[in-house]
Amino acid sequence: MREHFTQTDIEQLEQRMRARLINSLSGFKSVNLIGTQNLEGETNLSIVSSVFHLGASPALMGMIIRPDVVPRDTLSNIKALGEFTINHVSTDFWHQAHQTSARYESSVSEFEQVGLNAEYIEGVSAPFVQESRVKLALTLREINTLNINGTILVIGEVKHILLPSDSLKEDGYVDIEAAGTVSVSGLDCYHDTNRLGRLAYAKVDQATKSLCINGNTEGSEDG
Amino acid sequence: MREHFTQTDIEQLEQRMRARLINSLSGFKSVNLIGTQNLEGETNLSIVSSVFHLGASPALMGMIIRPDVVPRDTLSNIKALGEFTINHVSTDFWHQAHQTSARYESSVSEFEQVGLNAEYIEGVSAPFVQESRVKLALTLREINTLNINGTILVIGEVKHILLPSDSLKEDGYVDIEAAGTVSVSGLDCYHDTNRLGRLAYAKVDQATKSLCINGNTEGSEDG
Repeated sequence: MREHFTQTDIEQLEQRMRARLINSLSGFKSVNLIGTQNLEGETNLSIVSSVFHLGASPALMGMIIRPDVVPRDTLSNIKALGEFTINHVSTDFWHQAHQTSARYESSVSEFEQVGLNAEYIEGVSAPFVQESRVKLALTLREINTLNINGTILVIGEVKHILLPSDSLKEDGYVDIEAAGTVSVSGLDCYHDTNRLGRLAYAKVDQATKSLCINGNTEGSEDG
Repeated sequence: MREHFTQTDIEQLEQRMRARLINSLSGFKSVNLIGTQNLEGETNLSIVSSVFHLGASPALMGMIIRPDVVPRDTLSNIKALGEFTINHVSTDFWHQAHQTSARYESSVSEFEQVGLNAEYIEGVSAPFVQESRVKLALTLREINTLNINGTILVIGEVKHILLPSDSLKEDGYVDIEAAGTVSVSGLDCYHDTNRLGRLAYAKVDQATKSLCINGNTEGSEDG
């Protein structure tokens, strides 16, 4: 049995039901904590499921912010300082990460409220999440308002990458599953993962080939 | 032990290594097959890991296309017909889905080459993937070239949703894990998932609360 929603069906859904439905449909999403700080040194932490890869050279990440949903602090801090951190949410602290979405006052730091620790490195003013194992510092490159629905596309360039040594594989792939990174579906469902496998670059007239986790062809001499 | 890459380290990485590294860093990604057709009725299928949620009202999805990577057919077909489908890749056919990324000639249909079937519904010219369980038909709303790196942001509006009845929960959440949807990390690593749990809307001064899969509070009378 399958359900078929037409555009009319979608438009007639109760608002929160529609939000839960549509948010489920893009597939599994990244889930990250965005660390920022204002000019007074007050820290802010917010959970987002909208970070996406935009390019490797230069290394760019995009992030969609809904001004009516994400605390305005995140956006105003990014504008003020020109910096932010992206911290993977992991199996160790997904409850605390979710709790950052509560509507705390501007003057309150989500770090303290949810029990996560700020960590700083030289040359970066924005705070990292100490408990996060894969994390990036970015500088702001662009803020674009998308006219179609008023959401905001923030684009940052990666300046620092911090990750566990044993998650970095020979060919550059990062085993984020081994690092405990989680994924989210819909608005509120968290998942960990099982690796099905890596596949070699696909070629016409050749069946798919499995790769070892380190990027070598399985069964090859250097596998 | 942890690795620390600075911007200089990143810039000095060999190109393919850098691509694998940076592509791993946004977290888990959605993985979808984009179904299109040209004015002559020739079908095309391409795998993308860049579909993201843009808004629920109207229901909008975004997708980043790199003109030098994704076969030009996808973009030119979307422009020509103004329609495309998004089909979740599932555990049943992830090898075939990956194989669509081989550089087949324009005149060749990836459906036939990889052994997936096209499915049509009334009112939609673009083909769905029959084997996919969660799938959407969209009409093109906008194509924007991002000046920062020449990638293309395609925005579509959801006109039809097809999904298994038993994956749709009472409150609108879709259990895409139960529907077999997979996720991708980096350029080539596929994963299935285990649900850790759903969490209720977070509130200040209240600990996180678990939800049943159907959206009710666990332990509540209607749970």
